[in-house]
Amino acid sequence: MLYFDNASTTKISDAALDSYIKASQLFYNPSGLYKQAGEAKQAIESARAEILKQLKAPTKSTFIFTGSATEANNAVINACVTRKDKKYLISAGEHSSLYAAAKQKLDEGYNVIFVPLNKNGGVDKQKLFELLDDSVAFVSVIHISNETGAINDIKGICAQIKENYPNILVHSDGVQAVGKLDINLSALGVDFYTISAHKINGPKGVAGLYIKNTNRFKPQLFGGGQEFGLRSGTENLPGIAAFVTALKNTKIHDYSAHKQALLAEIHEPHFLVSNTDCVDNIISICFEGVRGETILHMLEDVGFLIGTGSACNSHTAGNRVLEQIVPKKYLSGAVRVSFGEEISVADCISLGKALNDAVKTYKAKLKR
Amino acid sequence: MLYFDNASTTKISDAALDSYIKASQLFYNPSGLYKQAGEAKQAIESARAEILKQLKAPTKSTFIFTGSATEANNAVINACVTRKDKKYLISAGEHSSLYAAAKQKLDEGYNVIFVPLNKNGGVDKQKLFELLDDSVAFVSVIHISNETGAINDIKGICAQIKENYPNILVHSDGVQAVGKLDINLSALGVDFYTISAHKINGPKGVAGLYIKNTNRFKPQLFGGGQEFGLRSGTENLPGIAAFVTALKNTKIHDYSAHKQALLAEIHEPHFLVSNTDCVDNIISICFEGVRGETILHMLEDVGFLIGTGSACNSHTAGNRVLEQIVPKKYLSGAVRVSFGEEISVADCISLGKALNDAVKTYKAKLKR
Repeated sequence: MLYFDNASTTKISDAALDSYIKASQLFYNPSGLYKQAGEAKQAIESARAEILKQLKAPTKSTFIFTGSATEANNAVINACVTRKDKKYLISAGEHSSLYAAAKQKLDEGYNVIFVPLNKNGGVDKQKLFELLDDSVAFVSVIHISNETGAINDIKGICAQIKENYPNILVHSDGVQAVGKLDINLSALGVDFYTISAHKINGPKGVAGLYIKNTNRFKPQLFGGGQEFGLRSGTENLPGIAAFVTALKNTKIHDYSAHKQALLAEIHEPHFLVSNTDCVDNIISICFEGVRGETILHMLEDVGFLIGTGSACNSHTAGNRVLEQIVPKKYLSGAVRVSFGEEISVADCISLGKALNDAVKTYKAKLKR
Repeated sequence: MLYFDNASTTKISDAALDSYIKASQLFYNPSGLYKQAGEAKQAIESARAEILKQLKAPTKSTFIFTGSATEANNAVINACVTRKDKKYLISAGEHSSLYAAAKQKLDEGYNVIFVPLNKNGGVDKQKLFELLDDSVAFVSVIHISNETGAINDIKGICAQIKENYPNILVHSDGVQAVGKLDINLSALGVDFYTISAHKINGPKGVAGLYIKNTNRFKPQLFGGGQEFGLRSGTENLPGIAAFVTALKNTKIHDYSAHKQALLAEIHEPHFLVSNTDCVDNIISICFEGVRGETILHMLEDVGFLIGTGSACNSHTAGNRVLEQIVPKKYLSGAVRVSFGEEISVADCISLGKALNDAVKTYKAKLKR
C-alpha cells in the first residue's frame, strides 16, 4: 500500500518513538519537589526552548503544549473572541477546529465574519483588508490550507494589519506549514501560531500554541497551574520529547517533480484546486461526474491510500471549503492526495495513472 | 531510590508501553475512509467498550477520551455550570483541576458553593445534604481525595441526591479511585466520572470522562466531530491503547499492612490526616514545628521520594485542602506518602524510620 494521505496524519518516526520510550523513564511529575521531578521539569523547558528556536520565535515569546491542535485553535478563539462590540475576521478556509470554534462564537452572538476565499482555497487578501477597521479585534488565517495546499501570505497579511491596526491580534494555524515551509515566527509577526506533532511524523495527542505575548492570552484549562498557568494538566513529557524530535528531524522536501509527474497522467476532465500559490505536497483535484469516495475505494483496491478532502470534515456532510471555490459539477468528485518523504516520483506516476484509470472506468460503468 | 509519590504520577508499565508502540503502527487517521482508517476507528471503539466494561458502566452510557483529567474535569464544569439562577455544590476537597474551574465560574458570577470537609479530607455529607434544594443543578464530589486518601461515599451521596432531586447532575473525579477501589459505575449512579491513565501506570496525556447520558453534556472542543461530536481532535490511538492495557492490568492491592508498618515507626508528635475512611495507599501526615519541604529533601538524601501534598498544588502557595482540616501548628509540616505495587512492607518500615529520624534531626537542629 502506498500512503498518499499525509495531510491527514503521518506515521510516527522511529526516532520520535525512541524519544517517547526514552522520556517515559523520566516519569516523575514535573511539579514534584525532588531532583528527578526537577529533571522532568527541565526536560520540558528544554523542549519548549528548542521548539521556539526551531520556529525562530522572537525572545520573550512562549509556547505552550496542548493535547491537540484542535485544543490550541479552540483556546485561541476562546481567549480572543470575548467582546460583543468587536469584530472577528476568520478566513473561510480555516481548519474545522478553528472554524467550528468560531462558528460557536457566532451562534453565541459574537460578530464573527468569515472572509471569502480565492479559487485555490487561500484567503482573499483584498476582501480581508477591506473588512479591517477599528472595531476588528482578531484575525485568523490558516498558513497552508489543509484542504487545498494554498499558501496564505501570513507575513504580508500580518504586516498590513499591524501597520494600520497594531492592536488587532493575528493568529495563524501552521499545522500544515511546519516541515513544508521554513517557519520564521519573528518574520511572520503573528501573535499566535498553532503547530501539531502528528502531521510531522510525531506522536498523536501532542500539539501546541506559540504565544507572542502572554498578556494577550487567557488560559482555557484551569487546575495545577502548569505551563506558566496558561494550560493546566500534568505534562506529557514522553509526547513532548517525541514532538521535539519530530520537529528537529523535519526536512523541507521539494515535491514539485512529484506533483508534475502525477498531474501529467491525468487526462480525464477535472478541476485542479491546488493550482497557483500552493505547496506541492497537497493536491486537491475534482473530477466531473464521479464520486470522490468511490474513486478512493477503487484506488484502495489497487494499492493507493488517498483522501477525499480533510479527514476532519468526514463527520460532516459536504466539504465547507471546496463548496466555496469548486464549480458545482466537479464538487462530488473531489479527491485529496498528499505526499510524505517515502513517496517517489515513480510512485506519483503510478498513482496518476491509477487515478485517471479509476475515473475512466467509473464513468464507463455509469454509461452502461 | 524508593518511590513513594504514586498519587502524583506513576511510571508507565512495560505492558502499557508495548501497547503504545504496537498501536503506533496503526497510525492512520480514524476519520479516513479506507480500510486501515476503519481499523484505527474500530480499535478506538473497542478501547472505549473495554473501559466501559472495566468500570461496569450501564448500557447506553459512553466514555470520551480527553488529553488529561484536567480537561475532563474542566469540561464537566463548563458543560454543567451554565445558569446564573441555579446553585452548584462543589466539595472543598476537589482536585485543583475541578476546584479551579469551579472557582473560575464563581468569579464569573455563578452561584458556586464549596461544601466543607470532614477531618479526614472527605466531604461533610450532612452539610452537603443540608445544602440540597430545587435550585441545585450539579454536585461534584471527588471519589478519593488526592491529598488525604479520604474515601467519599459516592454511592450513598448519589442515591440520597437522586432520591429527592432526580434532576441534579452528579460528577465524581475517580482519578485516585481507579485501581484502588472496585469501580462499579452502575452502582455508583453518577452522571459523570473522570479517570486518568498516568495514575495507574498508563501513559501521560490520556484520560477520559464517563458520561451516563450524552444529552446532559455539552462539548467543549469543537472541530472534526470526533468522539460522537463530544470532543473534537484527532484520536490518540497509541495513548488510548496503552490506557486500556493499564486499566486492564490494575489490581487492587491491600496496603493496610504497609500503612500500619509505616505509622508504627512514627513517634514524633504529628497529626494523621489519613485516619478513618481512607484508602491505605495514601498517607497524609503533618508534623509539628517542621517544614514539609525540608523533610522531603532530607528523605530524598537517604533514598526516599515523597510528596508534600498534591503535586498539582505546588504552583500555588499553601495547601487549600489541608488548611481546612489540619490544626494550624501542624500545617507547615505536611508530607504525603503514596504507595505503588513495587513497595514492600519492609520498604514502609524503612521509610517510617527515616521519616521519624528526619523530623527528630530537623527539630534538634532548630533547637541548637
